[in-house]
Amino acid sequence: MEQVFQYERLLLFTKKIFQKIGCSEQDAATASTVLLSADLRGIDSHGVARLAGYVRLWEAKRANTKPIIQIIHETISTAVVDGDGGLGLVVAPYAMQIAIEKARKAGTGWVSVQNSNHFGIAGYYGLKAVEEDMIGIAMTNASALVAPTFSVERLLGTNPICIAVPAGEEPPFVADLATTTAANGKLEILQRKNQLAPAGWIQDKDGNISTNPHELKAGGALLPLGSDKEHGSHKGYALGAIVDIFSAVLSGANYGPWVPPFPAYVAMPEQTPGKGIGHFFGAMRIDAFRSASSFKEHMDKWIRRFRSAKPVKGQESVLIPGDPERQMETKRLKQGIPLLHPVVEDLKYLGERFDVLFD
Amino acid sequence: MEQVFQYERLLLFTKKIFQKIGCSEQDAATASTVLLSADLRGIDSHGVARLAGYVRLWEAKRANTKPIIQIIHETISTAVVDGDGGLGLVVAPYAMQIAIEKARKAGTGWVSVQNSNHFGIAGYYGLKAVEEDMIGIAMTNASALVAPTFSVERLLGTNPICIAVPAGEEPPFVADLATTTAANGKLEILQRKNQLAPAGWIQDKDGNISTNPHELKAGGALLPLGSDKEHGSHKGYALGAIVDIFSAVLSGANYGPWVPPFPAYVAMPEQTPGKGIGHFFGAMRIDAFRSASSFKEHMDKWIRRFRSAKPVKGQESVLIPGDPERQMETKRLKQGIPLLHPVVEDLKYLGERFDVLFD
Repeated sequence: MEQVFQYERLLLFTKKIFQKIGCSEQDAATASTVLLSADLRGIDSHGVARLAGYVRLWEAKRANTKPIIQIIHETISTAVVDGDGGLGLVVAPYAMQIAIEKARKAGTGWVSVQNSNHFGIAGYYGLKAVEEDMIGIAMTNASALVAPTFSVERLLGTNPICIAVPAGEEPPFVADLATTTAANGKLEILQRKNQLAPAGWIQDKDGNISTNPHELKAGGALLPLGSDKEHGSHKGYALGAIVDIFSAVLSGANYGPWVPPFPAYVAMPEQTPGKGIGHFFGAMRIDAFRSASSFKEHMDKWIRRFRSAKPVKGQESVLIPGDPERQMETKRLKQGIPLLHPVVEDLKYLGERFDVLFD
Repeated sequence: MEQVFQYERLLLFTKKIFQKIGCSEQDAATASTVLLSADLRGIDSHGVARLAGYVRLWEAKRANTKPIIQIIHETISTAVVDGDGGLGLVVAPYAMQIAIEKARKAGTGWVSVQNSNHFGIAGYYGLKAVEEDMIGIAMTNASALVAPTFSVERLLGTNPICIAVPAGEEPPFVADLATTTAANGKLEILQRKNQLAPAGWIQDKDGNISTNPHELKAGGALLPLGSDKEHGSHKGYALGAIVDIFSAVLSGANYGPWVPPFPAYVAMPEQTPGKGIGHFFGAMRIDAFRSASSFKEHMDKWIRRFRSAKPVKGQESVLIPGDPERQMETKRLKQGIPLLHPVVEDLKYLGERFDVLFD
């Protein structure tokens, strides 16, 4: 049950909804561009399907649509940004821009953000730096769904990391990965279809291995990249922890089990040690290390060597990080973005409620 | 078959051997301290067991013991260092020191290194920054042993990343991880004992799943963190790739399948695109983001919350990255370092050959 919509049409609709909940025209344009970049790149769980969720955050007074975003501490290569409780879709582009401007002057720029909200997909921010011949880095913490190795309790979010690297004739290298074995979006698909999950994705509420995707809503947890200790889950746990520390302990945001949840119906954690959700951004000017042209020549060589590696039986070729998302973007810009029935219903409801035409 | 040696004694012996192959007294002191830090922290594969290997690299004229190490490009927050083919154990401490000095001035410092050799354990360098109230980052590429997702060919090294973070009353958080499911050292133990490896660690020369640890010497490959696509191996592959790009494409070192091997008897790759092995170091001053004291208070809170999480059945507690290595260091400083018989024989042979007393 899917219906296909043109990108431009969804973008305009989304922008209007953001304006209706109080965003300035410019902020609404930014927020809708960031949100829709997830749909274009095929990360459907983080795109327009979440628009109603953002609206509910605003309704619950958990997201400020008129934030005064400020730098509260800085050096020549660093800054801490206070997002004033704004939408992450607005706060994060601002912070990434500061990282890029710092990199212009100092070679690199590093920005940690407090008092923000969910920022969409990390890949969007990494690619902003690539446009400027810089390596872009973006990460964010999120509410706890993941159990560290040996823990029954959920203490980390899916805490994604994006690292995007420009190339020459080849398209950029874009790694954008949740620090878990499987993204939460994949679990949601299995839940809807009532299918089992592969062993190694989740544990139940007592910390036992489980293949029941519904365990996650019954106190179970996602597992860090690596699945179990024998397969390196302590490494996935460490990576998720680093995202949490860089995004929140460095900025003054909430961390670990105290990160505010995205669903507005879930109660806020008590005795929170910081402000809102945290992000971390980095930009490194290529020519702060070597000439951009020779770097790109070598990136092209790197990419071509990996892409031409002999593939295992049954696979066409070795992929470069970012390949699947870029191919999806090309396709969806042409053919449109397919949305599931419940998502379409949500959007229609939003349209009626805010008197914005949808369809 | 183990024999136990006091740290100080191994340190002195190692230093003398480095002097015998041409290192200055200061370089020999640095190299032996870095090398032995692996033994202290329990990463036996990267410690004094490799001393004979370093000597063979020097003999094969693949390591320069009198390097002129230079900065060949820099900005206020970045530098590229040319290691002049020196021992990584000497080049890398120099480069990490530059990252720290840059961070003092600019808030952060980032150094990419070309023309180096194997640098021991990444954890050593991360901890140097922690001593200065900075977050320390260290990574290195290495010769190809790892097959990217869907690849039959080995194109990446085990490419470790260390990120070390200071805390207050708690010991520092030190993540030091190979971007593979299992470290090569663990495979070597299984090879010696003729035991099977868990599924998910290696593939054979045709890319099939294998549990035979000897496959690695018959054209097989280590698998990236995640083991297979279904369990996120494309993420481990992306992380290993990032280490390769930051260490080598950014600096002008060799990358992918062209990274020089550690064993001097293995032929050098042909038509190498760069110089030697590459590393990448970062240092971020905590107070470039917020006061070190409030950061440390929150790190303590973070660490205590995670350490006190309810553990799964059969486990005593949730560990903080760096816990096992620190406990090992405390133990071995007191009780000495156990070495396997073949390692002791190697050291005795080196002692005789270079006329340095061993035992």
